[in-house]
Amino acid sequence: MANTSNLQAVLDQVDAGLDQSLERLFALLRIKSISADPAFAGDCQAAADHLAVDITSLGFDAEVRPTGGHPAVIAKARGNRGDRPHALFYGHYDVQPVDPLSLWHRPPFEPVLTDHADGRKIIVARGAQDDKGQLSTFIEACRAWRDVTGELPIDVSIVIEGEEEVGSKHFVPFLQQHKDDLAADFALVCDTSMWDGNTPAITTSLRGLVYEEVKIKAANRDLHSGIYGGAAQNPIRVLTRILGGLHNDSGHITIPGFYDGVQEVPPEVLAQWKALNLTPDLFLKPVGLSRPAGEADRLLIEQISSRPTCDINGIVGGYTGEGSKTVIPAEASAKVSFRLVEGQDPAQVRDAFRAFVTSRLPEDCSAEFLEHSNAPGIALDWSMKPLAAAKRALTEEWGKEAVLIGSGASIPIVADFKRVLGVDTLLVGFGLDDDNIHSPNEKYDLRSFHKGIRSWVRVMHALAEMPF
Amino acid sequence: MANTSNLQAVLDQVDAGLDQSLERLFALLRIKSISADPAFAGDCQAAADHLAVDITSLGFDAEVRPTGGHPAVIAKARGNRGDRPHALFYGHYDVQPVDPLSLWHRPPFEPVLTDHADGRKIIVARGAQDDKGQLSTFIEACRAWRDVTGELPIDVSIVIEGEEEVGSKHFVPFLQQHKDDLAADFALVCDTSMWDGNTPAITTSLRGLVYEEVKIKAANRDLHSGIYGGAAQNPIRVLTRILGGLHNDSGHITIPGFYDGVQEVPPEVLAQWKALNLTPDLFLKPVGLSRPAGEADRLLIEQISSRPTCDINGIVGGYTGEGSKTVIPAEASAKVSFRLVEGQDPAQVRDAFRAFVTSRLPEDCSAEFLEHSNAPGIALDWSMKPLAAAKRALTEEWGKEAVLIGSGASIPIVADFKRVLGVDTLLVGFGLDDDNIHSPNEKYDLRSFHKGIRSWVRVMHALAEMPF
Repeated sequence: MANTSNLQAVLDQVDAGLDQSLERLFALLRIKSISADPAFAGDCQAAADHLAVDITSLGFDAEVRPTGGHPAVIAKARGNRGDRPHALFYGHYDVQPVDPLSLWHRPPFEPVLTDHADGRKIIVARGAQDDKGQLSTFIEACRAWRDVTGELPIDVSIVIEGEEEVGSKHFVPFLQQHKDDLAADFALVCDTSMWDGNTPAITTSLRGLVYEEVKIKAANRDLHSGIYGGAAQNPIRVLTRILGGLHNDSGHITIPGFYDGVQEVPPEVLAQWKALNLTPDLFLKPVGLSRPAGEADRLLIEQISSRPTCDINGIVGGYTGEGSKTVIPAEASAKVSFRLVEGQDPAQVRDAFRAFVTSRLPEDCSAEFLEHSNAPGIALDWSMKPLAAAKRALTEEWGKEAVLIGSGASIPIVADFKRVLGVDTLLVGFGLDDDNIHSPNEKYDLRSFHKGIRSWVRVMHALAEMPF
Repeated sequence: MANTSNLQAVLDQVDAGLDQSLERLFALLRIKSISADPAFAGDCQAAADHLAVDITSLGFDAEVRPTGGHPAVIAKARGNRGDRPHALFYGHYDVQPVDPLSLWHRPPFEPVLTDHADGRKIIVARGAQDDKGQLSTFIEACRAWRDVTGELPIDVSIVIEGEEEVGSKHFVPFLQQHKDDLAADFALVCDTSMWDGNTPAITTSLRGLVYEEVKIKAANRDLHSGIYGGAAQNPIRVLTRILGGLHNDSGHITIPGFYDGVQEVPPEVLAQWKALNLTPDLFLKPVGLSRPAGEADRLLIEQISSRPTCDINGIVGGYTGEGSKTVIPAEASAKVSFRLVEGQDPAQVRDAFRAFVTSRLPEDCSAEFLEHSNAPGIALDWSMKPLAAAKRALTEEWGKEAVLIGSGASIPIVADFKRVLGVDTLLVGFGLDDDNIHSPNEKYDLRSFHKGIRSWVRVMHALAEMPF
């Protein structure tokens, strides 16, 4: 049995080994594992191989296994015993594309430890937070336990996928296929944020994601607007007219049936959220905004966590180069995504969106759709035992009561863990709002990384001691 | 005095020299003179140099002269006498960009003579029609006259610019600066189309062009739609909402004051147009469309020639690569153009568009504008003497009565010729609706090229014989 009284010695080991932990993170950050772009498939494979070697060195049996897309890593601690809590840790090694590259201050895959404008030490690179930095906090916590005690305080399995940023399309069948190897009592995920730089948080609800690409086609070729302008359908005009109608003046989404199944947040949760007093000054001012743009009759914290939303993530059509071209293009397309909350049916939302578009098409226009993501929103079980243990551990590490929050982002795998593996998930992460994830100059605070490792050391300790 | 009775001999010379004429056109088409892209500035210079050498060989004093942008060619026939009609011929050597390159069946700057699906011989290349092919019809006609008679039947000056496709911004000051060298009795322009493959046409009205680029900015960086979605302004959403409101359900443009000054076509002209019986089947079916998309209460021929229009020529924002990215971009932009008719003030239309956008911006959003073009619509003088002469000559060449039509496209220089040089312009061209100008696989019918040269031979002959 692990000697859990060694907690302080393990925390000391984390502090002493921080430079080496950072070096290992940098090695991982140098791998250009962009999952969205097929040109980087080799880098994705390299990231999986790299992680398998590293995790093996921690006393795990680790393997890179193929999926229908980029490979995944599966690992089981050789010291797993079966008579204590068994956690399945999940992370993803893939990262977002880096464009626009011109806005990065440094090459995105050359990680550096530098100073933030306000003096904080930060790690800058694509993936520094999402999710290479975050997943490394758990791996380094395991390393510290093993270095000091020779073993882990609980049973641990690890699975790391490579397609989270593109919808985990091949990971769900992979889970089905390997469910016996992934059996555990609960899952741990490190891909979320703190409430603020001093307040740790456990995320207890996640929005889902329906991500659609729509292409409008009209003429059989590009046309000259001088000759055809006035008579020919313009797919950009049609696209803007349809997408411009997705919201009404109050910020509500106009797609019929879109809000079907959406529940109000329970009064006690809403009361807790109101007490957090999230103001536009706090949340929007750092990114140059001042006024919440969502549903006018909702609190800001509701707009970003408990209410479904619609965003146009990309649009392109016609001539977009320098200067001018008097063209009426043959087609125009957009990427449109919906953040869903528990109760909404992703398939119904997708179909309603497609019907919304199709029913507004004028004569001579057609629409093609491509599905990129299709995950429901979920609410976690607030009464699960690991949650109470983790809350206590986080509160001890940070010296401030850990809060339970809803996340606006999607981690679709949480629903799949419940459905396929039958396990609840505990979401603990150390990201901050200014981490620029999915943006140029992504960063992770050195404090998040360091105290993140310490937090997992304490959480594992607390999980080992919880009534089981 | 030129022996104008040599007409048949000159026409025979055109027929005999067609292969050589074609070779010279191909040499011009091989020069990648794309004016919109600064990367091709050297090619624009090369095209000007090439033309100056060729025109000099025809007995002109030709010079390449600098403008604020790409250079222009000015030439005067050494045989000009001053006691007979003096024509200033205008053309442009610059061409449209070639994207999307993937839709071209052959490299756009490797001209080829090939067979159309229906058996017509066609010349395929960027610029094959607009305007290298068209301007070459006039130059080759001059060559035939000189080869047979040793001189031209009328006085001729030539000016060829290199920025027509990007709004001729530097050409108007150039005209001012060189107005003495460009003095003439009237201008000839070959940059328009026939009514159909068998019916020659003289264009007597032209739409103007206001071309604006608008960029909407919101947050100071790209944001993650999971974290900020619902609360952060999305510039694509704002842009689509504003642009999607530019037209109402009847296809009318909703910008306040947009139609100020627009005149109805005189009843006798409308009667002539109705007689031309332009049907959607004739005009739209070849490009894959079936129903006129403009103002619902207007004839198709009005929609494309006498009514002002608005088109979105390009739009871009957010993630447009393969796959998906859950980003709320910091900015989004569009290129929007308006075809104007006589009576509309371009500056007023531009200001009204900018006010339309600005007044619809939500808090936290700003708009930047960039002007690409600003030219009024114009109606030509139907009673000018050269028009009657040209109409007779065209009717003789094509064996079918030449028609007088309005063009939907803009040739802004026509207004500048009137204002700066005090001359009226005669617009004769041999383009066809299926020439794919501004599109991939631009072509010019060999018949247009051949009979175009013959037409100019006849027009010069008729101009020499008109009462003067």
